[in-house]
Amino acid sequence: MSQKPLILVTNDDGINAPGINALISFVKDIGDVVIVAPEKGQSGMGHAITIGNIVRLNEVTRPDGIKAYACSGTPVDCVKLAICHVLDRKPDLLVSGINHGSNNSINVIYSGTMSAAVEGAMEGIPSIGFSHVNYDYGQSFEGLKEYVQKICLNALSHRFPSKACLNVNFPNIEAKNIEGFKICRQAEAHWADSFEKRTAPSGGTYFWLTGVFEGIDKGTDTDVWALANKFISVVPVQFDLTAHHAIAELNDWDL
Amino acid sequence: MSQKPLILVTNDDGINAPGINALISFVKDIGDVVIVAPEKGQSGMGHAITIGNIVRLNEVTRPDGIKAYACSGTPVDCVKLAICHVLDRKPDLLVSGINHGSNNSINVIYSGTMSAAVEGAMEGIPSIGFSHVNYDYGQSFEGLKEYVQKICLNALSHRFPSKACLNVNFPNIEAKNIEGFKICRQAEAHWADSFEKRTAPSGGTYFWLTGVFEGIDKGTDTDVWALANKFISVVPVQFDLTAHHAIAELNDWDL
Repeated sequence: MSQKPLILVTNDDGINAPGINALISFVKDIGDVVIVAPEKGQSGMGHAITIGNIVRLNEVTRPDGIKAYACSGTPVDCVKLAICHVLDRKPDLLVSGINHGSNNSINVIYSGTMSAAVEGAMEGIPSIGFSHVNYDYGQSFEGLKEYVQKICLNALSHRFPSKACLNVNFPNIEAKNIEGFKICRQAEAHWADSFEKRTAPSGGTYFWLTGVFEGIDKGTDTDVWALANKFISVVPVQFDLTAHHAIAELNDWDL
Repeated sequence: MSQKPLILVTNDDGINAPGINALISFVKDIGDVVIVAPEKGQSGMGHAITIGNIVRLNEVTRPDGIKAYACSGTPVDCVKLAICHVLDRKPDLLVSGINHGSNNSINVIYSGTMSAAVEGAMEGIPSIGFSHVNYDYGQSFEGLKEYVQKICLNALSHRFPSKACLNVNFPNIEAKNIEGFKICRQAEAHWADSFEKRTAPSGGTYFWLTGVFEGIDKGTDTDVWALANKFISVVPVQFDLTAHHAIAELNDWDL
């Protein structure tokens, strides 16, 4: 039996995205890798699960021989299926990504990449989501290997923070110019949404969601600040959503 | 121009669910109501948004004359479309539900009903998600009117907690036996997931997600405790996911 750590790899851009292949190539040196990832893109799926429909899972043959499964469901479905059905023991590490596009600040709540890592944390698995600020599918991930391996090895050798996973974002600069890691809080921000209204050939109307990201946080301890200053941002992300600060206030209501 | 508060109503069970019709009948006395809700059930969609596809919105005629729109997207899409496209001003209150089934404890993270309320909070709107522990579509919501109206009127007359929405769950007992509201934290719990594997007529395999809810929290300040003790649970829910408790710990890693 292998003494290597068992590493589950997933993402939300789909099993054929360049980002997940880069991540697999980085972590295969440090553990036994199993991949369970969506068969198609699932960006923006947040913490969605498939409860009113069926889920399919198909084994995929890879040239490197790594076990891989494509799932018809969401990123969180992938994690649940991996734990319940694919793996014969709890993985030592879950990595998700590398997402094509930023998941810093408030974006974390919409992100399938990060929700997969949150689900891992809910299962007590050290879990890390990786995202790159650059959306371009043609970009190179070369040079990020040492950083991905470093934080994964730290996660395997240190006590992992309880009830949390890590949200790691890479700045959109050449890897040789990266200043290193910075532990951050999530920046406060807001999406100024808009919808583009269009007319179908048949005459009906439909909408495309668009929007502008509005940073409103001037802090130098945030992920937005870190990324703008050539650092890799690392934000610990929790899954207990209780707003403890509001409890005393609500006890003053007339209920 | 009406002096009444503007109330946006949504849900995740779909615009024709009994729960949303009960909620509309309860809040129409206290404000001008506009409904933007999914055309079909969107349970378990969490904070998913539609970013790789189009969204449609169709006006629905109601016998009570209340403006209503059915949306092809997720509950969060409904809130975004309502704010950007349907309403001419920011609503004074957003209510979501009444969900058929519990959204207490860890369920909040998977819930479309609650994610709609969270999205409202992210937009600075006082937002409340309502859920009933009883899943039965045939159950009566009679008797809950006074409680829904009371908390909505409180939300309109008090300063609403910043960066939070409210997760309100009704216990599965007759309304006359309800002991009142209890402000709570989210109980710690875990889903012991499993997947039922089946074979399609054509021979392929597929899965249904199932699972058992495992309460592990003995606290008497939780939503699970409140519901078991005949109270309506009220948990303030935040959208800043930073696990502040983990930041110091991570600064000790070798990164």
